[in-house]
Amino acid sequence: MIQTKPMIYLDHNATTPVCKEVLEAMPELATAWGNASSIHWAGRGPKNIIRDARKAVADAVGASTLEIIFTVGGSEANNTVIKGVFEYFQTAQHLPPEQRRRTHYMCSAVEHPAVFKTMMHMKSLGVRVDVIPVNRRGEIDMKFYEEHLCEETALVSVMFANNETGTLFPIKQMAEMAHAKGALFHTDAVQAFGKVPVNLHELGVDFASFSGHKFYSIKGSGFLYSRKGSNFSPLIHGGAQERHRRGGTENTLGIGCLGVVASRANLIAEKVKSMTLLRDHMEARILSEISEVTVTASETPRLPNTSALVLKGADGETMLMSLDLKGYAVSTGAACSSGNPEPSPVLLAMGLTRDEAQNSLRISLGWETTLEQVDSFVDTLKAVVDRLRSLKKEEEGDSCHV
Amino acid sequence: MIQTKPMIYLDHNATTPVCKEVLEAMPELATAWGNASSIHWAGRGPKNIIRDARKAVADAVGASTLEIIFTVGGSEANNTVIKGVFEYFQTAQHLPPEQRRRTHYMCSAVEHPAVFKTMMHMKSLGVRVDVIPVNRRGEIDMKFYEEHLCEETALVSVMFANNETGTLFPIKQMAEMAHAKGALFHTDAVQAFGKVPVNLHELGVDFASFSGHKFYSIKGSGFLYSRKGSNFSPLIHGGAQERHRRGGTENTLGIGCLGVVASRANLIAEKVKSMTLLRDHMEARILSEISEVTVTASETPRLPNTSALVLKGADGETMLMSLDLKGYAVSTGAACSSGNPEPSPVLLAMGLTRDEAQNSLRISLGWETTLEQVDSFVDTLKAVVDRLRSLKKEEEGDSCHV
Repeated sequence: MIQTKPMIYLDHNATTPVCKEVLEAMPELATAWGNASSIHWAGRGPKNIIRDARKAVADAVGASTLEIIFTVGGSEANNTVIKGVFEYFQTAQHLPPEQRRRTHYMCSAVEHPAVFKTMMHMKSLGVRVDVIPVNRRGEIDMKFYEEHLCEETALVSVMFANNETGTLFPIKQMAEMAHAKGALFHTDAVQAFGKVPVNLHELGVDFASFSGHKFYSIKGSGFLYSRKGSNFSPLIHGGAQERHRRGGTENTLGIGCLGVVASRANLIAEKVKSMTLLRDHMEARILSEISEVTVTASETPRLPNTSALVLKGADGETMLMSLDLKGYAVSTGAACSSGNPEPSPVLLAMGLTRDEAQNSLRISLGWETTLEQVDSFVDTLKAVVDRLRSLKKEEEGDSCHV
Repeated sequence: MIQTKPMIYLDHNATTPVCKEVLEAMPELATAWGNASSIHWAGRGPKNIIRDARKAVADAVGASTLEIIFTVGGSEANNTVIKGVFEYFQTAQHLPPEQRRRTHYMCSAVEHPAVFKTMMHMKSLGVRVDVIPVNRRGEIDMKFYEEHLCEETALVSVMFANNETGTLFPIKQMAEMAHAKGALFHTDAVQAFGKVPVNLHELGVDFASFSGHKFYSIKGSGFLYSRKGSNFSPLIHGGAQERHRRGGTENTLGIGCLGVVASRANLIAEKVKSMTLLRDHMEARILSEISEVTVTASETPRLPNTSALVLKGADGETMLMSLDLKGYAVSTGAACSSGNPEPSPVLLAMGLTRDEAQNSLRISLGWETTLEQVDSFVDTLKAVVDRLRSLKKEEEGDSCHV
């Protein structure tokens, strides 16, 4: 008898399955292979696909079409803003001297590497970077922010929602504070897209980054929101594409797929409700059925799909691998640093101990996650943790005998 | 009776149709939606696809796998090298002072905007850029190059083949000359991939840029060759992907498709022969059947697929649109500057007059172009040029009467 194990995916913050709407649209989109910049027949289909996708994307995030710049993903969008604002201030000779003196940057301590490492790179180029602390409850230090924000601040970059804990930051208030000092405000909204409603005009930020593959589209597609009037130097110089803001032949397929998922944004409110119910149910079961577990930052507003657990005495990497063997996909931190044996820098920055960070597990639900999947996951996690803890006890017992 | 017009694509330097091998591979590649950096089951399929594609790509261009960095296309690769070398020299504190004083850059006068505009951007950041002239025969000024190359030169960037005229440059010799001065050498090989055999180890360059969609793959895929030991600062900082040289979740679909086309590189030698025959046949007919036509840079080694024509008294944009109405796709210059009423900067830089540049047409054949297509194109071009010239004569006659 062949036993098939379940393939249950609970790592939607790393990436999401491609939805059936996108899979169905792909063959036709792939036949629009012309260069959208060509003025002959082969360019017209791609041009229309891109125009329609731009409208769908703009509508999905409460922006206007001229404010949408297609990129290949969130990391490119993040790098574009941080490096682009820096180079714009460096090279825009027409700016008044007080603007060109803006060489101070800020970000939170828990940013994704695409923001954090870029900020550290800017530091090596000579700018001043202040990192805003975040406590173990996931709250950003608003006092530090207020005290360090100044007339020299060029750009503040704070993520909309944290990828590892799901915590939401007070973006609207922080953007207003930045603007009061004449600084620009960017938010990495990669983890928010598809998990909470986003309205950029209401939010009042200058820039926001988005990725398609975190929202059920294919990889290699994303976009940057750049508020009307916001200036930056392109990350990719080249042709006149994207109104001279991003060179390179348009990825019609990626952009078209982004349009498809953006047109499903009307479902988000309802999905928030169902994911919240499932997540709360899962956490309640875990907290009641497994001993010595905490949910990191559970007292702070969070994404509806994310649970960051600390399971005392159970190594995260080992739990991940044991769960994987049984068909469950979860994560210990961000996928882009997976394989790295060091505990998550984000959790350490929040003040978790090294042990706590090492014993962490991230579960992130998706639009299609079911109650059955969550329940069978909790059952399996329970067994895995029990086993690891008893093995550890034995080892400790053994070492006593030595 | 419904008349169907032919759809004959002769603009392969702008982009190429997606080949059937890629179309067939796409559905399966799209199901490998996991994040290649995830260490659970969902990451393993994508990881294998990327590993295999890297091998196929490295083999196709005579490189080793560690030297291949996947990007989303040629423009990103070009920007990565130019900006990355600059920032590496700026920030690498361990370099000896003579290396860090390297602030001189060179490129040819006929580079693609992804190189040329990036070089001009570097100039605005304070570096010295020398532009190597190219004459109307498409020959690069080696005397100028030799005289200006110096101990301060950080990087030389000269394209492998020009996108508008198809002329090939003496890359191997130029790279050797750069190395003799301790400078790095980059070649934008986007137009070469699939049109001539490329062996990077033999060529001896430090960096080379490639794009998938110019070689029958989907858009949003490309790669950068970075010779073992060559250093640059990443254009996209972020996760540890591509051995810390390019952040961002890997675009498994784009990379997989690149692997598919790379494995067809063994066909290039044969395709070169057939495209050369067709191109020569086409040019011979045009030169004998249409009066006052020249083929730009025909006396210089060229790509086998590209013809840059100057047709006296016939406006390029009008020819393009007339041909488009009859189903033929050709170009007046690079697609990324299409819609721009200015004549091609590349042709002007080569010393063509404004009139000559304005009366230019680029025809670029592909792997699937047939003799019938070429013949019917020449017939149609003949009719279009005759009509435009007689209209012009009438206009000139009219204006004489005023």
